[in-house]
Amino acid sequence: MTVTIAPLAGFPEVEPGTDLAELVVQTHSLEDGDVVVLAHKVVSKAEGRVVRLDEIEPSEHARELAGSDGDARHIEAVLRESVRILRVRGPLVIAETRHGFVCASAGVDASNAPEAGTLVLLPLDPDASARAIRERLRELTGRTVAVIVSDSFGRPWRQGTTDVAVGVAGLAPLLDLRGKRDAAGYELRSTEIAVADEIAGAAELVMGKTSSVPGAVVRGLTLEGEGSARDLVMPPGRDLFR
Amino acid sequence: MTVTIAPLAGFPEVEPGTDLAELVVQTHSLEDGDVVVLAHKVVSKAEGRVVRLDEIEPSEHARELAGSDGDARHIEAVLRESVRILRVRGPLVIAETRHGFVCASAGVDASNAPEAGTLVLLPLDPDASARAIRERLRELTGRTVAVIVSDSFGRPWRQGTTDVAVGVAGLAPLLDLRGKRDAAGYELRSTEIAVADEIAGAAELVMGKTSSVPGAVVRGLTLEGEGSARDLVMPPGRDLFR
Repeated sequence: MTVTIAPLAGFPEVEPGTDLAELVVQTHSLEDGDVVVLAHKVVSKAEGRVVRLDEIEPSEHARELAGSDGDARHIEAVLRESVRILRVRGPLVIAETRHGFVCASAGVDASNAPEAGTLVLLPLDPDASARAIRERLRELTGRTVAVIVSDSFGRPWRQGTTDVAVGVAGLAPLLDLRGKRDAAGYELRSTEIAVADEIAGAAELVMGKTSSVPGAVVRGLTLEGEGSARDLVMPPGRDLFR
Repeated sequence: MTVTIAPLAGFPEVEPGTDLAELVVQTHSLEDGDVVVLAHKVVSKAEGRVVRLDEIEPSEHARELAGSDGDARHIEAVLRESVRILRVRGPLVIAETRHGFVCASAGVDASNAPEAGTLVLLPLDPDASARAIRERLRELTGRTVAVIVSDSFGRPWRQGTTDVAVGVAGLAPLLDLRGKRDAAGYELRSTEIAVADEIAGAAELVMGKTSSVPGAVVRGLTLEGEGSARDLVMPPGRDLFR
């Protein structure tokens, strides 16, 4: 079984209301079982999840956190997207989003924003975004595919970002091997593989941050189950680093 | 540019001294620019980095950590592979290895071990392992490829493991986009992408923990630079979670 990762190229600029599924099918011929990975930036733009810096009035807390280096309006946008702040160093804020994701700036980002002076937020409900795009793809093509909405997250202890799944539809994001046995018969007691994150990372390899490729089609995987990107959030009771 | 991920299938059981490069070329036709990803388990087995539980005398510290649930000999093996313990809960130990990696059990693992009662350790120097396999592949085929030695690591805040690079030869594990500009001209100030980790995760998608596929060949990437998997270790001064 060989897996292929094909970039979604030739996308025009995405605006509020853009039908992303239509753009996908215009540039790509889908097959049953494909995984369509879309960077959250285009999903957020299509959903109007963009704010203008000059329309944000920073709170006192945001001004304090921003100090003299940072942009207090940017920090204010981050605070509004956060349910909890984990770490602050200079303008870098590590926060937990309403979805439970822990990431830099609560997913608020100025790069690849539609214009200077704007910020792109995470979708309000990225699973719902993925489900809607999946349904629309089925409507347009008759194909049953999975959809992943991805974002670039940093990790403790390791340099660099990897793309992970923040929204999932049509596949189980965790492959649960607990109770199965390895080739030598040894029981794999505690192995769950975050396949949705690995698929998102694989898609990033053909996307590139500076080019205009907002996603990829991953073909050749066996899709099993259903689930939500929230399955990827470690429950606080199991989390050793919360 | 489409990227393909082909599983390395048909490997026999690996023993100390097994020539892994020879097994790769026996089952696969390589091209210049391919990335050969090998699970550390086979690399460690080929290098004899396997210990027998019944030859380990646990220390008092290992007995304390193991409590009544855990195997003190297993914990002792973990302690010997660790330079620092970060968290302990029940038999789960999160530790820093001599290479600087932070992971469960310092990379010590009983699954996919050559026989019951043995543990597989990480290679002593996984970069050197990758370099040696790369050189041998060049010798056997004349091809210039990259080699990644991978392992499955958990992450704080997210469920499930993803495969990451613990050894690298022939490519820069971090793609540095700092100073480059996005499609709208916005400067990407702080973006480094951990491409080696994304490649390792992509390879895992065709490997499967319970089947006998110990690696994959990833084709279609543009390989740039040189580097070490230690480049992926966050320097303590930049680490907000150490």
